[in-house]
Amino acid sequence: MTTLHPERPASPSQSATATDELCINTIRTLAMDAVQTAGSGHPGTAMGAAALAYTLWSRYLKHNPANPGWADRDRFVLSPGHASILLYSLLALTGYALPLDELRRFRKWGSLTPGHPERGLTPGVELTTGPLGSGFATAVGMALAERSLAARFNRPGHEIVDHYTYGICSDGDLMEGVASEAASLAGTLRLGKLIFIYDDNGISIEGNTDVVFREDVGARFQAYGWHVQHVDGNDVAAVDAALRASREAFDRPSLIVARTVIAYGSPNKAGTPEAHGTPLGSEEVRLTKRALGWPEDATFYVPEQALTEFRNARDRGRRQESVWQERMASYADAFPEEAEEFRMAMSGELPANWEEALPRFSPTDGAAATRVSSGITLNRLGAVLDGLVGGSADLAPSTNTLQAGKGDFSASTAAGRNLHFGVREHAMGCIANGMAVHGGLIPYCATFFVFSDYMRPAIRLAALMQAKTIFVFTHDSIGVGEDGPTHQPIEQLASLRAMPGLTVVRPADANETAAAWRVAVEREGPTALVLSRQALALIGDPERVRTGVPRGGYVLLDGSPGVPDVVILSTGSEVAVALDAARVLEDRGILARVVSLPSWELFDAQPMAYRDSVLPPSVSARVAVEAASPFGWERYTGTDGEIVALDHFGASGAAAVLYREFGITAEAVGNAAVRSLDRSRRAPASKLNQAVIL
Amino acid sequence: MTTLHPERPASPSQSATATDELCINTIRTLAMDAVQTAGSGHPGTAMGAAALAYTLWSRYLKHNPANPGWADRDRFVLSPGHASILLYSLLALTGYALPLDELRRFRKWGSLTPGHPERGLTPGVELTTGPLGSGFATAVGMALAERSLAARFNRPGHEIVDHYTYGICSDGDLMEGVASEAASLAGTLRLGKLIFIYDDNGISIEGNTDVVFREDVGARFQAYGWHVQHVDGNDVAAVDAALRASREAFDRPSLIVARTVIAYGSPNKAGTPEAHGTPLGSEEVRLTKRALGWPEDATFYVPEQALTEFRNARDRGRRQESVWQERMASYADAFPEEAEEFRMAMSGELPANWEEALPRFSPTDGAAATRVSSGITLNRLGAVLDGLVGGSADLAPSTNTLQAGKGDFSASTAAGRNLHFGVREHAMGCIANGMAVHGGLIPYCATFFVFSDYMRPAIRLAALMQAKTIFVFTHDSIGVGEDGPTHQPIEQLASLRAMPGLTVVRPADANETAAAWRVAVEREGPTALVLSRQALALIGDPERVRTGVPRGGYVLLDGSPGVPDVVILSTGSEVAVALDAARVLEDRGILARVVSLPSWELFDAQPMAYRDSVLPPSVSARVAVEAASPFGWERYTGTDGEIVALDHFGASGAAAVLYREFGITAEAVGNAAVRSLDRSRRAPASKLNQAVIL
Repeated sequence: MTTLHPERPASPSQSATATDELCINTIRTLAMDAVQTAGSGHPGTAMGAAALAYTLWSRYLKHNPANPGWADRDRFVLSPGHASILLYSLLALTGYALPLDELRRFRKWGSLTPGHPERGLTPGVELTTGPLGSGFATAVGMALAERSLAARFNRPGHEIVDHYTYGICSDGDLMEGVASEAASLAGTLRLGKLIFIYDDNGISIEGNTDVVFREDVGARFQAYGWHVQHVDGNDVAAVDAALRASREAFDRPSLIVARTVIAYGSPNKAGTPEAHGTPLGSEEVRLTKRALGWPEDATFYVPEQALTEFRNARDRGRRQESVWQERMASYADAFPEEAEEFRMAMSGELPANWEEALPRFSPTDGAAATRVSSGITLNRLGAVLDGLVGGSADLAPSTNTLQAGKGDFSASTAAGRNLHFGVREHAMGCIANGMAVHGGLIPYCATFFVFSDYMRPAIRLAALMQAKTIFVFTHDSIGVGEDGPTHQPIEQLASLRAMPGLTVVRPADANETAAAWRVAVEREGPTALVLSRQALALIGDPERVRTGVPRGGYVLLDGSPGVPDVVILSTGSEVAVALDAARVLEDRGILARVVSLPSWELFDAQPMAYRDSVLPPSVSARVAVEAASPFGWERYTGTDGEIVALDHFGASGAAAVLYREFGITAEAVGNAAVRSLDRSRRAPASKLNQAVIL
Repeated sequence: MTTLHPERPASPSQSATATDELCINTIRTLAMDAVQTAGSGHPGTAMGAAALAYTLWSRYLKHNPANPGWADRDRFVLSPGHASILLYSLLALTGYALPLDELRRFRKWGSLTPGHPERGLTPGVELTTGPLGSGFATAVGMALAERSLAARFNRPGHEIVDHYTYGICSDGDLMEGVASEAASLAGTLRLGKLIFIYDDNGISIEGNTDVVFREDVGARFQAYGWHVQHVDGNDVAAVDAALRASREAFDRPSLIVARTVIAYGSPNKAGTPEAHGTPLGSEEVRLTKRALGWPEDATFYVPEQALTEFRNARDRGRRQESVWQERMASYADAFPEEAEEFRMAMSGELPANWEEALPRFSPTDGAAATRVSSGITLNRLGAVLDGLVGGSADLAPSTNTLQAGKGDFSASTAAGRNLHFGVREHAMGCIANGMAVHGGLIPYCATFFVFSDYMRPAIRLAALMQAKTIFVFTHDSIGVGEDGPTHQPIEQLASLRAMPGLTVVRPADANETAAAWRVAVEREGPTALVLSRQALALIGDPERVRTGVPRGGYVLLDGSPGVPDVVILSTGSEVAVALDAARVLEDRGILARVVSLPSWELFDAQPMAYRDSVLPPSVSARVAVEAASPFGWERYTGTDGEIVALDHFGASGAAAVLYREFGITAEAVGNAAVRSLDRSRRAPASKLNQAVIL
């Protein structure tokens, strides 16, 4: 077992040159000053990991500060996002479009230096990190994307895709299950160009990591099939040598276990939990500067010599990118089509007329589960979108997410487009996000809808980053049947609809499903497709469906021209129930409109005039029907409305029995419509007369 | 690396006696028949793991089929819940109150044999399993509970708590991150009475596990500090010896890696993925019976000799329990108070007048974050409720969940009541559930609210099982401030409110917080306490608050007697905003009622008369204010209402700046109230006149 001691002596960086030392201490003091100025933040990790981050950035990381979007740059992931000041310091010092002054605005409203790194906000930040473990797992997806794109585009003598994914991770990252899942898969897939340094400082918020983390991390990663080394994280030469050896271990991902001291240099707080998440205090900052041989009174002090050294990254980066540009030019000469395809892939452009590949289903195709229609659509799209790469968490035969004839992605077959994630939903989501933010691919990933819970943090990060990840969730209701309540989603629809930045689409038939895929491929951010296990007949005119889905909701059926008596709203498999209910009501002389509402997010984004045309404000008699939690439907049903739904968990039994026993039936919807109609016709004055019973 | 081959030959059970063989094949054939009769299900694992399950149940498991609630029984967890028929067979055969006929009703509506095991439904089922990895992690909590209770109640010569936690897990379980988290913690805590058999059949749904799971599982568990053995899972003597050695490795949890063959005995489907999740087919069932030397045409056939052997469990169990009852009687003689305390703990009875320990806060206490008030309440309760055991996912200083003076629970100090879970939210939730379902403890677990996403599957299982787990979630809004959007919950409130069976309470001040804890301790099922990072002043009369919280919502302030003009609804930190808004409105001559609504679930469960008294139907001018997603609030605000909330993610910056910039202010609420009032006063007829714009 590794035994960790916070009190272990901080080894001097004996192997570092004076310039190295100056640069490393520049990072440390900037970190202290920024956190102290902000009044909150995490100085310790940045100080402890400064030497190893510096070694990586100055000697190995291939990047061009002038062009953070360069396709073949190495990717760098700071998985412990709370150490963001480390990354911001490196970006500002090496010359990204992040002024050093922004370090003074650390954690302030409107700054480029928020508490945790945010992709899309700060130039050079590859990934939004902070939720622990997620950065590590997402980096696996980036490395996977590199290998996939290399297999697709490189030609003998023309290596246009050839970069590493580097990362720093913390004990917290490696305690999180998602990192375990991703590490196991990375080992299986032999992602040799993935290199993580584990900042093993032996300290977590509640104290010494011995209390909770006595495992031998190195041995664990060896068991996963990783190349593992142990070094002193303050020893620049040792870190350098370990990085070199990691790059040479091309057949395995690498973990460098680097022993470090949290808040290195602080006389009274180094190696203590107090240095983790609070400013050191102005006196301790002063003492630390003294210990590091730094001017005690200067804040945000960057020695000229250190800045010059850091800024060498600009020249180096320019040269590195120009070498690649030449390689790219020669590739374009030899393979003009592929070069254009590569450009489009990396910029996210879709091929012209790709949408013509979408299937058009007709009644003669028969009823089909939307998961099946989805599989057909995916396969059609796969023929024209080479970037579609994805898979399932060991449920591919059930989620219908296999691209026939496109091969498996494995350690030996990187050109394959079918991924096998294993039973690792959370890592799957993160890995798909990593592929999306890497660029060049349109990743999708799949599992049963109820298990979206396992990957919720990954879905949230996709939404936060607006990563174009397509989440395919099948078996979307009690329609799951016999597998019972552990496998029947109830609250998942509401809980994902509540998430900002995510588009949820629950199609009602095969044509809605094809249209939903179109939405997913066209949109910038993430989309969740929520699909049935059970077969569903076509719900109506294919053209109406195709134009309706992108608007989120549309009138599927009107009992008669003009204003209906009641509006029935529904999604997915329950649209058929709504249609049946309309017929039941017609027999009772009530004119019902049926609205299919596959995506609340898309519908709510429509102009009010359109929304009012679908849901006339004058018609307050409304019923929603969905085999899920009623939560949230009041938005559309209003005060007079009714919701036919499930406010409890499901049960094991045949799907049809469950629908009947739980009252998700046309009769129930019809009765609810009558109740709502009665309520809406009540004179509003009567409401005011209702007694307030105390 | 372990290399697995589905085609490896099935070893004969050479070490088994004829009776053993008969019993094992009884399980295998019942599994086939039940799945075949149901038309769906998972026969393969039950058949492959039959020998090892039989060996465990017949030779080691301490249980009394006549009394599934016996406090000192060994716990058995079938983590791959899809193999439920294995467990049902064992329960029915050994004589639990589960008639063998129920196996014929497998997966049918209303049966005692649902698709996945459900705690509370089937006698002898300890745990609801199916979501992979969760069962494994929950078993860790059971073993932890045993050790905690043993430390608390046992006295020299009086071991009234002394049982094992056994489990079977699958490759899918061990791919899931939650199992990794739990295994690492179990190793750190040296839970020696936890013994898992890994049913290593080399097959998952998408094929050979080699494709996704090439790691050396045994080496990984050794790295966690587990005792690891490898056996042939069909070799009864080898499994027996391994179980014995595991029991003797008292200082470490044990994993027995048992090589098995999925669908053992099936001539054409053994060792193939097809045998995982679908019936074998009637012809293959026949062929398998022939291969096993079974009558080919009999279904659900239980040989008399096998039944007799299985039913020995009843005598054995009766004897085992009576030995324990004698031990308990002698304990009660020597330690009558402890014996009574033990009885109460195991039955979930609370000590008389426990609620008097709840703190009563007054304005002189000053403003305090509800996480701080929660910490005070927890410590007061801890003084009278010895069963309160819990902790945090490495955030105890921030979540205020440390019980001062109650010691740490560690490998060497099992009497301590403060757990350290490490950065492992998902395992934390499962472990807490395991403690709850074990009995004897009132577990709580804590993290930042945004990271409730990591443990959502555990929360769902608590809700499904109605396990009394208390989830403490702090840092509950953009009030988190500088840490930014990765740390600021937005959609978490809505997404948990949508979950059936969970009570969510978001208190608004210190007294609401104390009352919320009372709710959590009194209720049967799980409760989520959602608490602020920032300080909150008392919102009103403590007595009103104390009686109001258990009802979920109550009138906190009325502008005047009688019917208000507008109702402002709020929860948590925004109740203060609502009170300010009421004052703003009063200045404008509008009488506002302020309703504090800490728990929607509790409020919705009140009689309609009460709900109408709080939210008069005649007052349709309503505003809700909450620094979270607006999703779901329409339930209370209705058609005329307004919602002041956040339909986007947060940002990094000072909390006060975020509230201002994002418009969660008294002014915004006041303006919304005026808009809602205008809308409500519009003649309803005008609504009908609204043009439908097409």
